[in-house]
Amino acid sequence: MEDFKPTSTNQPGRQYPQVNSEGRVRARIEAPQAHTVLLDIGGVRYPMTQGEDGAWIGDSRPQDEGFHYYQLVIDGARVPDPGSLYFFGANRWGSGVEVPAHDQDFYAIKDVPHGRVQKILFPSGSTSTIRRAFVYTPPDYGKDLSKRYPVLYLQHGWGEDETGWANQGRVNLIMDNLIAEGKARPFIIVMTYGMTNEIRFGGIREFDIRPFQTVLVDELIPYIDANFRTRSDQPHRAMAGLSMGGMETRLITMNNLDLFSHIGLFSGGTISASDITDRDVFKQKIKLVFVSCGSRENPGRFRPAVDSLQQAGISAVSYVSPDTAHEWQTWRRSFYQFAQLLFQ
Amino acid sequence: MEDFKPTSTNQPGRQYPQVNSEGRVRARIEAPQAHTVLLDIGGVRYPMTQGEDGAWIGDSRPQDEGFHYYQLVIDGARVPDPGSLYFFGANRWGSGVEVPAHDQDFYAIKDVPHGRVQKILFPSGSTSTIRRAFVYTPPDYGKDLSKRYPVLYLQHGWGEDETGWANQGRVNLIMDNLIAEGKARPFIIVMTYGMTNEIRFGGIREFDIRPFQTVLVDELIPYIDANFRTRSDQPHRAMAGLSMGGMETRLITMNNLDLFSHIGLFSGGTISASDITDRDVFKQKIKLVFVSCGSRENPGRFRPAVDSLQQAGISAVSYVSPDTAHEWQTWRRSFYQFAQLLFQ
Repeated sequence: MEDFKPTSTNQPGRQYPQVNSEGRVRARIEAPQAHTVLLDIGGVRYPMTQGEDGAWIGDSRPQDEGFHYYQLVIDGARVPDPGSLYFFGANRWGSGVEVPAHDQDFYAIKDVPHGRVQKILFPSGSTSTIRRAFVYTPPDYGKDLSKRYPVLYLQHGWGEDETGWANQGRVNLIMDNLIAEGKARPFIIVMTYGMTNEIRFGGIREFDIRPFQTVLVDELIPYIDANFRTRSDQPHRAMAGLSMGGMETRLITMNNLDLFSHIGLFSGGTISASDITDRDVFKQKIKLVFVSCGSRENPGRFRPAVDSLQQAGISAVSYVSPDTAHEWQTWRRSFYQFAQLLFQ
Repeated sequence: MEDFKPTSTNQPGRQYPQVNSEGRVRARIEAPQAHTVLLDIGGVRYPMTQGEDGAWIGDSRPQDEGFHYYQLVIDGARVPDPGSLYFFGANRWGSGVEVPAHDQDFYAIKDVPHGRVQKILFPSGSTSTIRRAFVYTPPDYGKDLSKRYPVLYLQHGWGEDETGWANQGRVNLIMDNLIAEGKARPFIIVMTYGMTNEIRFGGIREFDIRPFQTVLVDELIPYIDANFRTRSDQPHRAMAGLSMGGMETRLITMNNLDLFSHIGLFSGGTISASDITDRDVFKQKIKLVFVSCGSRENPGRFRPAVDSLQQAGISAVSYVSPDTAHEWQTWRRSFYQFAQLLFQ
């Protein structure tokens, strides 16, 4: 289909990359002396061909709706596409491309009251670092200075960082739109880096939750409660995460039932009734367990777990994102569903 | 000098680019099948050579202290270096490299109370867009909710955008450090995009101040005053900018003496006594005219202007950044000097 258009994730004024109505991505780069140029989306490489003007051009096969990381390979050099904006994922700042989705309205930028995303720096004694977090405050946060808000701690996946949710995740726009439509209660969202190995990214197999749990529970939460107008009791604190961030959420919330009341696992494991040592305490403390993934992942794996929670009288909700895999469109939609259930 | 080290602007865990004690930048990229690879810093291209491992490596001549935009050229393709973080300048998101400076302490990240940088979205009827700004609030902004703060509107240069001051400019860290040392009064800093042509960057020669003046004066200032705890009177509002942002500052403040009391022009023109139609009004309204540039620019051009202001009884200060040109180290230092004189 020759209906390719520049994408919303292009750099200002750039004509490429483009996407067509089938979801094919077309890249173009001027590389007059190159031998071979490839378009690499999620590890799948597509050949590009050189035109008479010296520029190389090539198309991918149709991609799922939503956001994808990609790169160009020029004579063996793996580099970002100078036409795209850059996003942190796959352990690097690199190119991303947005494939328009049929449901993109829920994360579109609209003329509604907008919340703010703040970059904060907080001291971490346990890691001897000054750490960064991003904090979303809802549109009315600056208006009524006596009002306090529940808080969601929201984690990224492995190879990503604390910038992901507000950049490619568009979580601030999803919240702005939900609040404008009266579909979600306003809450604060806190996003920080979910690993404590700043220099090298650790393998996920040897991952130890304790260092990050210390940062989150003993350092970040007290900092947020001291510096933002939060409701700092357990019923008004939630945690969620995608992929590795879901695994972290599961471990940290199960270790700290006195701190969190709502749990969200997006493409990041499950909790089943058999995981819970004291069901009465869990049922009393935990108001929501939300479990989701894309239809192209393995939804069958978490359904029995959610069923077991429901049978045990625990409030549990599952969600499957249609026609998506382990990717941001799944997580945008998961957040959209989850946010409507929080702090009700 | 073979004392090259990875730079502070490298992506996490990346060993290249590196800088040595002479300020030479060394880039390295794996491009096994390439013919030619060049390192391009500010338009000057340095050859790179291929080693036996297939990776290309090359050094620049010594660079000024501070921050520089650069790119790699692989068989004619101009691309970002996958080893560096990315910054917006030269009309693109691309690579930047930090050359350690003898005075880098003033913009270092330290264990002091940190302010926040917030991304806000504000409606702009005049341009029919929803526009972005970044707002720095000082460390104590969240503490005493009855306290109000003066505001500085701070502009980027041509080919840059509203991200520049808080990324490569490190303006939030400069302020945090100044406040911690008691050298500056806390104030809010607002940074927005200084042009109204979103799709293509206009030439500076045909630049018309009116559309941006409308955005700033009629839309952004009222939005900030309504949504932040500002002191909204003329004595507590300042404007400054670098390069094109200095030119904008000069035009907008001179058109709006009832709105601004402090003016900062960093490598961005001057105001001389002969520019002022009513000196009594100007003297009464304007508490500071600050003019600066790098020693490798043309400091001789603004000294007579500043002298003429001083002779007319107007509070005017000039500053020359040693051994720097039209570049960020000049502007970081200029801001550092200017901030100490604001709202005193």
